Amino acid sequence: MAAEKTKILLDESEQPTQWYNLLADLPTPPPPVLHPGTLQPIGPDDLAPLFPMELIGQEVSTERYLDIPGAVLDVYRLWRPSPLFRAHRLERALDTPARIYYKYEGVSPAGSHKPNTAVPQAYYNKKAGIRRLTTETGAGQWGTALAFACAQFGLDCEIWQVRASYDQKPYRKIMIETFGGVIHPSPSNLTEAGRKILAEHPDSTGSLGIAISEAVEVAAQHADTNYALGSVLNHVLLHQTVIGEEALLQLAKVGETPDVIVGCTGGGSNFGGLAFPFLREKLAGRMVPVIRAVEPAACPSLTRGVYAYDFGDTAGMTPLMKMHTLGHDFIPDPIHAGGLRYHGMSPLISHLVESKMIEATAKPQRECFAAGVQFARTEGIVPAPEPTHAIAAAVEEALRCKESGEAKVILTALCGHGHLDLAAYDAYLSGSITDHSLADEDIAAAIAALPPVPA
Amino acid sequence: MAAEKTKILLDESEQPTQWYNLLADLPTPPPPVLHPGTLQPIGPDDLAPLFPMELIGQEVSTERYLDIPGAVLDVYRLWRPSPLFRAHRLERALDTPARIYYKYEGVSPAGSHKPNTAVPQAYYNKKAGIRRLTTETGAGQWGTALAFACAQFGLDCEIWQVRASYDQKPYRKIMIETFGGVIHPSPSNLTEAGRKILAEHPDSTGSLGIAISEAVEVAAQHADTNYALGSVLNHVLLHQTVIGEEALLQLAKVGETPDVIVGCTGGGSNFGGLAFPFLREKLAGRMVPVIRAVEPAACPSLTRGVYAYDFGDTAGMTPLMKMHTLGHDFIPDPIHAGGLRYHGMSPLISHLVESKMIEATAKPQRECFAAGVQFARTEGIVPAPEPTHAIAAAVEEALRCKESGEAKVILTALCGHGHLDLAAYDAYLSGSITDHSLADEDIAAAIAALPPVPA
Repeated sequence: MAAEKTKILLDESEQPTQWYNLLADLPTPPPPVLHPGTLQPIGPDDLAPLFPMELIGQEVSTERYLDIPGAVLDVYRLWRPSPLFRAHRLERALDTPARIYYKYEGVSPAGSHKPNTAVPQAYYNKKAGIRRLTTETGAGQWGTALAFACAQFGLDCEIWQVRASYDQKPYRKIMIETFGGVIHPSPSNLTEAGRKILAEHPDSTGSLGIAISEAVEVAAQHADTNYALGSVLNHVLLHQTVIGEEALLQLAKVGETPDVIVGCTGGGSNFGGLAFPFLREKLAGRMVPVIRAVEPAACPSLTRGVYAYDFGDTAGMTPLMKMHTLGHDFIPDPIHAGGLRYHGMSPLISHLVESKMIEATAKPQRECFAAGVQFARTEGIVPAPEPTHAIAAAVEEALRCKESGEAKVILTALCGHGHLDLAAYDAYLSGSITDHSLADEDIAAAIAALPPVPA
Repeated sequence: MAAEKTKILLDESEQPTQWYNLLADLPTPPPPVLHPGTLQPIGPDDLAPLFPMELIGQEVSTERYLDIPGAVLDVYRLWRPSPLFRAHRLERALDTPARIYYKYEGVSPAGSHKPNTAVPQAYYNKKAGIRRLTTETGAGQWGTALAFACAQFGLDCEIWQVRASYDQKPYRKIMIETFGGVIHPSPSNLTEAGRKILAEHPDSTGSLGIAISEAVEVAAQHADTNYALGSVLNHVLLHQTVIGEEALLQLAKVGETPDVIVGCTGGGSNFGGLAFPFLREKLAGRMVPVIRAVEPAACPSLTRGVYAYDFGDTAGMTPLMKMHTLGHDFIPDPIHAGGLRYHGMSPLISHLVESKMIEATAKPQRECFAAGVQFARTEGIVPAPEPTHAIAAAVEEALRCKESGEAKVILTALCGHGHLDLAAYDAYLSGSITDHSLADEDIAAAIAALPPVPA
């Protein structure tokens, strides 16, 4: 029986050739992005110093489907379509009647979903005559992805990595260099933004917000250099929809329809990539899955942040986006899921939560690692710390099914492997990991620093 | 056109259900394994303290095909059939008319081909009522594979890792622990062999020979404990033939027949696993590929060793095997391809080289890493140091094709990823790696220490 398979594969001939744009199907659009000076909606020219015009066009497009260029499809084929797994062994260990499926993005060159957008971003920048891309990276997944993508199109790649991760995860740096990228710990003294932070906090462990400020500063100063963002923006989530489109095809092959979809959220790109095609189906009345974003309790933008206009970076150089935020100078505790340490959230994901089209929940670190270890011992893949949040939520749902006797179909995205995050597992196995809890007054104080913008 | 695909996949329904036993098709059998005391061929009883009878049976079987148990196939399906890739981007970078295919085993839980044999070994031991497996590991690939396999069948797994690697490569230890294995640095004070070494050399950084002694000692002393070996023996190579069987099916799907097959050799299991099914086809006259083993110039057993009876371990505790050897107390330079640092070679592979049924060549370290970096930047996968030897040989062959204009079909096995070996790439990229060359007199001296056995 097809549903009993372990891996549901797609042939390259079945590879999706279009990205899906959720903006085309939303009942109401998300609030506009504002210029920080004029507080007016930004236009293409405001973004032109950082992004090529084709990506800017994708950022604001309301076309339902956008063609994936052939050169991008060619690179995607190095690992796409990615496999969908039925977690038979995890199900058995949980003794649940639920059927758990996971879409595995760890087969990519970087080991995560990030190359899905790195490749088109490098492609469009190369096409626009750009010579170099700059970016930030947290745990290093995004930096690795962009370094790989730049190698494919002959672009230079310069990366600022959050120092906490740079120090914790030295292998990421080497992998980025193996792909030909150049990497700096952030805050660095190579930029104005970095020097300012270091003057005030010489021991700063950094944050994605600070690293973004550094990368953006360098890109803005050089005409041959653009900036690339690995999450948050509409065009990034657009590129990631190949995940959900493939998963839809794969589930259909085994005659399954998801009842619950869970994905981890940092900036929102993995979650959006998985969920948006299913949300399209839900909006069209073809299925009724519960769709749930899972974030770390230590950085709870969706569950404890405020929905307001805020900067995307710490230095306040970016446009203002309406999103769930903990305040742009909030510095999350250095939890091991570096990719989920972002003060804000994709405006599109925030809009969906605010519109109650999707749910959000938060998980403490130890519950996530416990799920990650159980997953490794049953399914054989050591997950990155980020998707252990999704796995913990899938396990919780499967155990609920065990109580209720419901044979729900649970779908999640295993967005990356943890081969370069093993120090985190060592910390967990040796009992030295703690659950970071945030006091209400600390969150209130961080949010109080929001820029004065009309609600 | 099918041949233009990047990935040639097999559905689970096409998974091979039998292992291929080359012994059934050899014109002459390899010389027998001898008891070190009597110098007579060993029998099953000699191996029974360490291995279950079903594995001993496979070691000496001359049946052409052996059924893979259903429980083993179930675990294989977590990653098998593994993908076969056409290296379009590497070919383009080399500007070669050759068509290069690589069978990728890095998709397995351990990140290499090792689980192909770890899983059946754990299965047969569990079936025989064994409670615990012991083994040694150097760089850690084999230990990881066995820890994973033991987790699948509810066996305890206890591993002695050479202390130098234990200290230098902490990620492997963590991965083993994440899979539930117990790992000790070797020499340890848990065994007689370890205590003896530590008494004489308290700061000993260990060796594979010492680690084997410790693992064998514990297995021999406990009725509920057996020992598992990751390469060299016939049953290990037998289990690995799933690699070549799948590759045969995959090449047939795109209408290709290999002209040249290259694989890296340490103990011989990856190479044998890829090559034996193709050798069967060659012996039957259905194809005529050149089949070439590639070893490191720093540990050149096949190309500069002697074909003679020798011990499998440094301490001289094992039966005597006729093989290409550099002498059982030869200590290879600490090259980064830890999996290729073995003084001997699988007796079966040695017999094939001696019979001129396959060729052998050696590659220096820097040429291999240069090929590995080029591979990573074009194909997106960072190879383990071991298969960079095969990649270097494939690149050499492809460049020969560029000279001659021949459009040869080159097949190789990318037996593992290098995610946990990135320190080696760091050393290469920073220019601190050297090519180790061996003086003829050093090799002659090592070989002079061979045990006195009839030639």
